[in-house]
Amino acid sequence: MPKKPEILHRSMVAQSRLFRIESFDLRFSNGVERTYERLVPGGTGAVMMVALLDNEHLALIREYGGGIEDYTLTLPKGAIDLGETMRDACNRELQEEIGFAAREFIHLKKMSLSPSYMSGGIDVVLVRDLYPSQLEGDEPEPLELVKWPLAKIHELYAHQDCTEGRAIAALAVAQEYLAGRYPGTPL
Amino acid sequence: MPKKPEILHRSMVAQSRLFRIESFDLRFSNGVERTYERLVPGGTGAVMMVALLDNEHLALIREYGGGIEDYTLTLPKGAIDLGETMRDACNRELQEEIGFAAREFIHLKKMSLSPSYMSGGIDVVLVRDLYPSQLEGDEPEPLELVKWPLAKIHELYAHQDCTEGRAIAALAVAQEYLAGRYPGTPL
Repeated sequence: MPKKPEILHRSMVAQSRLFRIESFDLRFSNGVERTYERLVPGGTGAVMMVALLDNEHLALIREYGGGIEDYTLTLPKGAIDLGETMRDACNRELQEEIGFAAREFIHLKKMSLSPSYMSGGIDVVLVRDLYPSQLEGDEPEPLELVKWPLAKIHELYAHQDCTEGRAIAALAVAQEYLAGRYPGTPL
Repeated sequence: MPKKPEILHRSMVAQSRLFRIESFDLRFSNGVERTYERLVPGGTGAVMMVALLDNEHLALIREYGGGIEDYTLTLPKGAIDLGETMRDACNRELQEEIGFAAREFIHLKKMSLSPSYMSGGIDVVLVRDLYPSQLEGDEPEPLELVKWPLAKIHELYAHQDCTEGRAIAALAVAQEYLAGRYPGTPL
């Protein structure tokens, strides 16, 4: 593993309601100096859930993505609110987004969005043993719940409405976990 | 598929050397109005390559991620330069980052990074039939090439240095393609 570059200087260069952009000057171990920029998210983290509705189906949501200006088929997810545990956040988001709560939570992986340009990340959690329970969320319109067969995840990867890299990654890791080839940690 | 919300107003709210942040007011089909923000990347797209070094190994790179301020194990990737085809960009980045060029390029999927907050995306391409060829890139230090067995991709998912969601997603889609369960398009 190479020696990490030294951070010479760091400053905030732009800020909006949701985003902060930080600039920092680095000196690599070979002496080369560069200025990098990265996005620093606010808040205390985020969770993405692979929620099993039964032994053969998972829960997808269809929601409007402001970034791509179109509807997208993806996994339930959301920010961890201040004071919430990761398990609390998962259970709240599930109730807000798909109308179910869960009894079993297995942490699979903390994923980064873009290690080059963004700090932070999202924790991927497999949730099982669901039961109906609804909470009012902050969604501008109700999300559509789509029940997808686990046996057809490869067809979901090819679906034109399913484009979110980290959702595909979460599904791949969950499949390996369910096949007994990947470790998980109960929450 | 729901009717897309109407965009009432759009403006640029912050800008740095690398990032632009856009704010836009939406009216959803149920009448609810919201203000969204999204990141708008510059440039003409980006590519990420699953590069097969032989029938049993793929090419990973270990590079410094300014976003996470640490080294990370991920796939070769980079921006498509003005005037380049996607195939040109793949072949240039491969030569800059791993010291190989390729003869076969199969487009697998255009992935979004965060459909909620970011426009744009990255095109995932499987490359095969490699031969040694080096180009000088703009990396501040040489990248380490790591040869990883295809049969151990599930161990890579669990590796603490491999965190990038879209790289894991690209590997999952490539595995389905190689298993004959996912369509690809030759470039």
